[in-house]
Amino acid sequence: MTQPFPFSAIVGQDDMKRAMLLTAIDPSIGGVLVFGDRGTGKSTAVRALAALLPPISAVRACPVNSARLADCPAWAGVVDGTTQDIPTPVVDLPLGASEDRVTGALDIEKALTRGEKAFQPGLLAAANRGYLYIDEVNLLEDHIVDLLLDVAQSGENVIEREGLSIRHPARFVLVGSGNPEEGELRPQLLDRFGLSVDVASPTDIDERVEVIKRRDAYENDNAAFMLRWQAEDAALRDRIISARKALAQLRTPDSALRDVAELCIKLGSDGLRGELTLLKAARAYAAYRDDTALARAHIRDVAALALRHRLRRDPLDEAGTGTRVDRVVEDVLG
Amino acid sequence: MTQPFPFSAIVGQDDMKRAMLLTAIDPSIGGVLVFGDRGTGKSTAVRALAALLPPISAVRACPVNSARLADCPAWAGVVDGTTQDIPTPVVDLPLGASEDRVTGALDIEKALTRGEKAFQPGLLAAANRGYLYIDEVNLLEDHIVDLLLDVAQSGENVIEREGLSIRHPARFVLVGSGNPEEGELRPQLLDRFGLSVDVASPTDIDERVEVIKRRDAYENDNAAFMLRWQAEDAALRDRIISARKALAQLRTPDSALRDVAELCIKLGSDGLRGELTLLKAARAYAAYRDDTALARAHIRDVAALALRHRLRRDPLDEAGTGTRVDRVVEDVLG
Amino acid sequence: MTQPFPFSAIVGQDDMKRAMLLTAIDPSIGGVLVFGDRGTGKSTAVRALAALLPPISAVRACPVNSARLADCPAWAGVVDGTTQDIPTPVVDLPLGASEDRVTGALDIEKALTRGEKAFQPGLLAAANRGYLYIDEVNLLEDHIVDLLLDVAQSGENVIEREGLSIRHPARFVLVGSGNPEEGELRPQLLDRFGLSVDVASPTDIDERVEVIKRRDAYENDNAAFMLRWQAEDAALRDRIISARKALAQLRTPDSALRDVAELCIKLGSDGLRGELTLLKAARAYAAYRDDTALARAHIRDVAALALRHRLRRDPLDEAGTGTRVDRVVEDVLG
Amino acid sequence: MTQPFPFSAIVGQDDMKRAMLLTAIDPSIGGVLVFGDRGTGKSTAVRALAALLPPISAVRACPVNSARLADCPAWAGVVDGTTQDIPTPVVDLPLGASEDRVTGALDIEKALTRGEKAFQPGLLAAANRGYLYIDEVNLLEDHIVDLLLDVAQSGENVIEREGLSIRHPARFVLVGSGNPEEGELRPQLLDRFGLSVDVASPTDIDERVEVIKRRDAYENDNAAFMLRWQAEDAALRDRIISARKALAQLRTPDSALRDVAELCIKLGSDGLRGELTLLKAARAYAAYRDDTALARAHIRDVAALALRHRLRRDPLDEAGTGTRVDRVVEDVLG
Amino acid sequence: MTQPFPFSAIVGQDDMKRAMLLTAIDPSIGGVLVFGDRGTGKSTAVRALAALLPPISAVRACPVNSARLADCPAWAGVVDGTTQDIPTPVVDLPLGASEDRVTGALDIEKALTRGEKAFQPGLLAAANRGYLYIDEVNLLEDHIVDLLLDVAQSGENVIEREGLSIRHPARFVLVGSGNPEEGELRPQLLDRFGLSVDVASPTDIDERVEVIKRRDAYENDNAAFMLRWQAEDAALRDRIISARKALAQLRTPDSALRDVAELCIKLGSDGLRGELTLLKAARAYAAYRDDTALARAHIRDVAALALRHRLRRDPLDEAGTGTRVDRVVEDVLG
Amino acid sequence: MTQPFPFSAIVGQDDMKRAMLLTAIDPSIGGVLVFGDRGTGKSTAVRALAALLPPISAVRACPVNSARLADCPAWAGVVDGTTQDIPTPVVDLPLGASEDRVTGALDIEKALTRGEKAFQPGLLAAANRGYLYIDEVNLLEDHIVDLLLDVAQSGENVIEREGLSIRHPARFVLVGSGNPEEGELRPQLLDRFGLSVDVASPTDIDERVEVIKRRDAYENDNAAFMLRWQAEDAALRDRIISARKALAQLRTPDSALRDVAELCIKLGSDGLRGELTLLKAARAYAAYRDDTALARAHIRDVAALALRHRLRRDPLDEAGTGTRVDRVVEDVLG
Repeated sequence: MTQPFPFSAIVGQDDMKRAMLLTAIDPSIGGVLVFGDRGTGKSTAVRALAALLPPISAVRACPVNSARLADCPAWAGVVDGTTQDIPTPVVDLPLGASEDRVTGALDIEKALTRGEKAFQPGLLAAANRGYLYIDEVNLLEDHIVDLLLDVAQSGENVIEREGLSIRHPARFVLVGSGNPEEGELRPQLLDRFGLSVDVASPTDIDERVEVIKRRDAYENDNAAFMLRWQAEDAALRDRIISARKALAQLRTPDSALRDVAELCIKLGSDGLRGELTLLKAARAYAAYRDDTALARAHIRDVAALALRHRLRRDPLDEAGTGTRVDRVVEDVLG
Repeated sequence: MTQPFPFSAIVGQDDMKRAMLLTAIDPSIGGVLVFGDRGTGKSTAVRALAALLPPISAVRACPVNSARLADCPAWAGVVDGTTQDIPTPVVDLPLGASEDRVTGALDIEKALTRGEKAFQPGLLAAANRGYLYIDEVNLLEDHIVDLLLDVAQSGENVIEREGLSIRHPARFVLVGSGNPEEGELRPQLLDRFGLSVDVASPTDIDERVEVIKRRDAYENDNAAFMLRWQAEDAALRDRIISARKALAQLRTPDSALRDVAELCIKLGSDGLRGELTLLKAARAYAAYRDDTALARAHIRDVAALALRHRLRRDPLDEAGTGTRVDRVVEDVLG
Repeated sequence: MTQPFPFSAIVGQDDMKRAMLLTAIDPSIGGVLVFGDRGTGKSTAVRALAALLPPISAVRACPVNSARLADCPAWAGVVDGTTQDIPTPVVDLPLGASEDRVTGALDIEKALTRGEKAFQPGLLAAANRGYLYIDEVNLLEDHIVDLLLDVAQSGENVIEREGLSIRHPARFVLVGSGNPEEGELRPQLLDRFGLSVDVASPTDIDERVEVIKRRDAYENDNAAFMLRWQAEDAALRDRIISARKALAQLRTPDSALRDVAELCIKLGSDGLRGELTLLKAARAYAAYRDDTALARAHIRDVAALALRHRLRRDPLDEAGTGTRVDRVVEDVLG
Repeated sequence: MTQPFPFSAIVGQDDMKRAMLLTAIDPSIGGVLVFGDRGTGKSTAVRALAALLPPISAVRACPVNSARLADCPAWAGVVDGTTQDIPTPVVDLPLGASEDRVTGALDIEKALTRGEKAFQPGLLAAANRGYLYIDEVNLLEDHIVDLLLDVAQSGENVIEREGLSIRHPARFVLVGSGNPEEGELRPQLLDRFGLSVDVASPTDIDERVEVIKRRDAYENDNAAFMLRWQAEDAALRDRIISARKALAQLRTPDSALRDVAELCIKLGSDGLRGELTLLKAARAYAAYRDDTALARAHIRDVAALALRHRLRRDPLDEAGTGTRVDRVVEDVLG
Repeated sequence: MTQPFPFSAIVGQDDMKRAMLLTAIDPSIGGVLVFGDRGTGKSTAVRALAALLPPISAVRACPVNSARLADCPAWAGVVDGTTQDIPTPVVDLPLGASEDRVTGALDIEKALTRGEKAFQPGLLAAANRGYLYIDEVNLLEDHIVDLLLDVAQSGENVIEREGLSIRHPARFVLVGSGNPEEGELRPQLLDRFGLSVDVASPTDIDERVEVIKRRDAYENDNAAFMLRWQAEDAALRDRIISARKALAQLRTPDSALRDVAELCIKLGSDGLRGELTLLKAARAYAAYRDDTALARAHIRDVAALALRHRLRRDPLDEAGTGTRVDRVVEDVLG
Repeated sequence: MTQPFPFSAIVGQDDMKRAMLLTAIDPSIGGVLVFGDRGTGKSTAVRALAALLPPISAVRACPVNSARLADCPAWAGVVDGTTQDIPTPVVDLPLGASEDRVTGALDIEKALTRGEKAFQPGLLAAANRGYLYIDEVNLLEDHIVDLLLDVAQSGENVIEREGLSIRHPARFVLVGSGNPEEGELRPQLLDRFGLSVDVASPTDIDERVEVIKRRDAYENDNAAFMLRWQAEDAALRDRIISARKALAQLRTPDSALRDVAELCIKLGSDGLRGELTLLKAARAYAAYRDDTALARAHIRDVAALALRHRLRRDPLDEAGTGTRVDRVVEDVLG
């Protein structure tokens, strides 16, 4: 199998790349929804991001990629704590996946007669400490999306069947892509994604030629191409690592909280998840920018990512939700 | 796992908090329906309330959390009556739960050959003496809601399969939340919930900043935050306990009954459940206020909670049902 | 478990009470349909009526409550004919009940290898010699309603599966309640119910206060309340018993037959079940009134109960079906 | 079980009675469809007719009621040819009957290992040499109706499953009743019924009183009532028996064939089944009338029975199909 | 069982009879679709045709009626090559037939453990070398029709299940009948039938009387009637046999090919199947007419049979498709 | 079985033939969608193309037709590496195929107890190194089409069930045909097919006569006809082989990339797959034309094949998508 396309070599698509980087810095921001036409490189980007991240150290044979033997679930029966470096996991969730395939399957009969070995971990186990990618999330059944968002939020997958209860860590960033023309997510679900971005094919000819050239080089002259982008990816990787560390020390002035609240009230975004997410995203962005305190500029630059998908439809306002966010940001933050 | 958010630290949302406190004082009031936007803290509140309540003393290993060995169902096979203090149970009922998962599953074959041990208790057993929480209750199948309301009303879960009959206590307060824009409950079901409230995100900027601040402190400085609210929660807990005791001694003058009846007739609320619920809620409120007799003011303050969801749609009256209750309350109770 | 609410203590609801009393006197009148809003005490009334009736003497362990060992079905394997007094059975038919649960389930394999013991009696067996109550009958599947009406009419439940045939007596009064706004019964089914009544919440304030007071007393001061109504229930019980005996001797003049036929023709009620039911109901009423011959007044007083639900919709006549019956009764019987 | 209501005691309903008598004389006429309101005595009539017919002599334990041991199917394993008189079978086909229940069920596994005993005969076997009655035939699934009509036409029930083939005689008259307002039969199916009639409640008061009186006498003074009508039923029975014999000798002049053809062309009835059925029905009627040759009057009197349900809807002609047949009969036959 | 109605005795219906005779001469023409009202003798005709054809010589016990032992499929396990004359098979395909019943069922488990005997041949096997008749083909599921047309075209039935592959010859003429008012076939399927005809009841009184007379004679005086038509059927049989032989020698001038192509282009019939079928049908007709070369007249006489069902609907041309073919034939062929 | 129709003998249909040849030269172009009327020779063409290609050398008994023993999947248990020449596989995917049939079925129980032999390869295995043909692809279920396109793109079929994972190479060209009037593919799926063509019946009489003549000769004089076209097919085969080799050396000037990008921007085709496919198709075409560098003319000649199905509907532009591509090609490439 060839290596993923280098993250740095992706032409344009700045919003998508920024949203993905922010979740790499603070996974508690929640998942990313990528809306847009087919063929705009959504799945390429998520694979590229995972390849960009530093490998993780995981116990060999641990089904949830735990860093220490103590964190391997008992049912896995792992006894040897030797670790190895593995790439950040990226798990694809296929459209027709059953709930058992997602959460893992518990064979009750076996469980009762032979003990806990009867649990067959699912995609959520495999995605622990990494990414779970769903293409065309708007075509997925609601109850699966619900389940994914519940687990993503709690960081733990609990399987309860007939009085048996199995649990394992399941911390991952959910990345969903979808074409809004083909079906919509319920507002309840939209709200539970952290960030959202729109992507589109570039309309600038040079940019498009560049896209084809890079893709062509990637396919036909793979080794040279990977070498060419290695350094840029490495630099980006270092920046993510240092931003993760800086995040805890970042100062958050009260004025920033007021800015965030005022923005959300003016936009009429329902609920409080928008505010909390915007706060986190702005902080991650500040850390990425190597700043030591949260400032207006940070909020301004990520407001649309965090709020756009939480706005109600306004039939009297023909502007898209992104534009409406921008107008209010302009208005509130100057 | 971290502790729930402190009940006292919830900003605003007075109706929701009052409705929850009333059911904590008199669980026979019936469940609470919380209508409102996503992200307004509905599930936070129900968890906070449960944490607020005094722990209950329960027989170890009793599947229905009974206080005495004599109340543990025979099928549970509990023989050791040692008790322990456990938190008030809060059980989540997930959207796709099967009837077996809710009521418990009876393995007929085993039952016939090996006796009563073949019963696998369900969510209703786990919720005994506590709360059963259903997010998006309007998306739940009607027959499950029916079943829940039946059990909540009778306080007993009876499973009958092919001539076998298993029963256990199942006294709990049902809390359902839902977004009325996403589907409605049948009037038959609405009527069987005791109280209902509307919640919405605050539109005051200081209130919102306060919400974010508290949530931020809860997430990032948990120990200090919990300590900060400990005393207020304790005071509220004591007040609930003393109100529970006072309830039996509370006087109910005939004029109060007339007030209640007149209100319901004027509002055209179908059936008599509204009247009985309003009476109970007003009494619980009087006890909470430390008063010794039911008075007009008590009825006035809880009328909307008890009656709003029992009104028929009136297409000629654009005011919401809450406003209609208020107008009639004003009219009848002055 | 507490005792049912006393039948005599039900405030108002005269039509419903009368219809129920008539079927208690002559169960061959057929079932009763109770239309009306939620919370108007329909299920309270049917339980109250059953408690009012004299206990029946039944063979111990007989699954169909037979009075004599000879009437216990062979498959039940009852060998000891000792009898005991049991309350008149009232069986609830839950909305989602399967056909097997209703009719009883026949385990073919067992039946072939081990004989007739393989029959597991259902709700119809349990209801023999009593009442079968269906809340929200309009939400029940048509084929179940069909089956119930067939059995109620024939007085026998026959289960035929793959060449095996099991039968047992199943004489019961079917009481169905429903909210006509939530779904209608097919006219074919409506016609097979004997009587129908409309119930509504009282609109008189004193009546409503009385209802709440009695319900409050029943819940909070149960022993005293039951004692208070004991004598009235006993008197009513005696009246039912003597009316049952008087029924066989009641004279039916030809003029009464003409009155009944003329009423039905004028009302354009389809089929002849209306006439026969009206005749029976009027006779039961005459017996209840302690009269020795059927007279015009008896027909007049029960005509609406027996005919209302058999009228076709008349889009040009805005009066309800009850009013239309009354007008024609006025016209024909003076 | 009480005896069926006497056929002779049915008040009015001449068309229905005539159609049933004709199929009793010549069962090859095909089934009878009875359209009409509920409660007009359709099922009473079919049971009455069966009771009227002479008992048939059948081999004991033969599952298809065969007259001679040689006609019992091999799979039944009957070895003793003793016969006994049994009433003409009337089999009810319930609405939800499965195909296996109707045709009989073949247990392939048993059949292969233990031989032909593995066939469990169904309703079609039980109906051989008698009547198969379907209430609300318009609510039956089309493929079951199809199957019934196929067997009724061929006189043989063939069950083929995975290479095994079981067959048995299944000659019966199919009587279906239905309310045309509740759903229609496909024209393909309508056409395959031999005759059809409309029934309605009488609108004459004396007739209705007479109906109630007889029904009342039947229920309350059964023995005397049965005795009262015994002679009339016996006379009718003799007439059917002699008509059956006379049918073979009946002359059919060419002019009658022309009359029949002209009628059908003028009526635009599709296909030729109408003509053949009309011919048979008219012959059976002539035999019933004790005439020796088919004449115009016979055709005239049964034309509507045989043709009405074969006419296409004519949206420009508001007259019912019966009236249209009568007009053309008048026109063609004078 | 009585013999089928003689083909020669069918009154009128020339198109249907011609189409059936042509497929008897050259089965590669493909199936015949018969559109028309019920009761017009479609199934009578297909049975009559099969009885008309010379018997075929087939190996005893061969499940696909093969002429030589070598052609019996291996899985059938036939070892004795003795042949016998059997009538041309006519297999009815019932509406609800499962795919297994049609293609034959392969018991995988048996196959793996016991070898090829595990195949249970289906209707397609039974129809080999004969006719497969489907009444109401427009009500059959599309995938079954597809499957039938695939097999009919390839002449071979291949069953592939989990890596096992069973095959047997399945050469048959597919005859489907249907009422176009009750549902349509997809154009894709229509196109794959070779010929189509419309049938209707005769409107001439003498013709109809003749139909009834013959049918009456067939039913009531069977032996004489069969004898009466024996010679005509024999002559027709000889003509088919000699036409089959003459077909190979028939000359096809280029001008005929141009006529066929021009016709199809002018008619705008999609695809090329129409041309090939018309060519084959015209050749079979020429052979039937005992001519030695294909001529315009032959094309003219069968054009409508081959092309009518391949025309697109033309909403601006109210003439039926048959008339449109005739107009273009007139125009092109003079 | 007779040999497929010679590819060279197909009359006209140049677009379809070109598209198929291009995928034969560079299978990574992706599948071909053929839209058009029935009977236009779509399945004939795909079979003809496969027969045209040189045979492939494959390991005997290898279920995925691998060239070397090393490439046979372990689960196949092949131990003997002897190869043999086999025709290029062409696998038909029937409309109702289950996912198991397509991907192969994994018997979990067997797998756990007996090892990997429990995998039963499916159609994707059989199609490796060849063609997978789907007639009426627009009627196939979306999730199957999705699955096929995923595998076709990755070249590998991965079956994951309950923790077991089986994989095998599955490189094939997907050819789908469909009638756009009968149902559409989702744009998401359309985009993932490499090329698309429209086919129609010829409207020139000489061309049609030629089609019939060749088909007639193919059917009636097969040996001579195959001999007649053998040389032309061989020449075409050589040309494909040499084009495959030349492809790697082909030069791609930057101006060609700009042409491709500009075309796609002007056409507003979503995503970048269109550009990459057009580039590949143009290169394959250049190699087929024996040119050494990609030029404008090559792009021009295949642009419609690669882009047509990627255009959005334009309700204001009545021209078909093919015409819109041609206009823009004219405009951009001159």
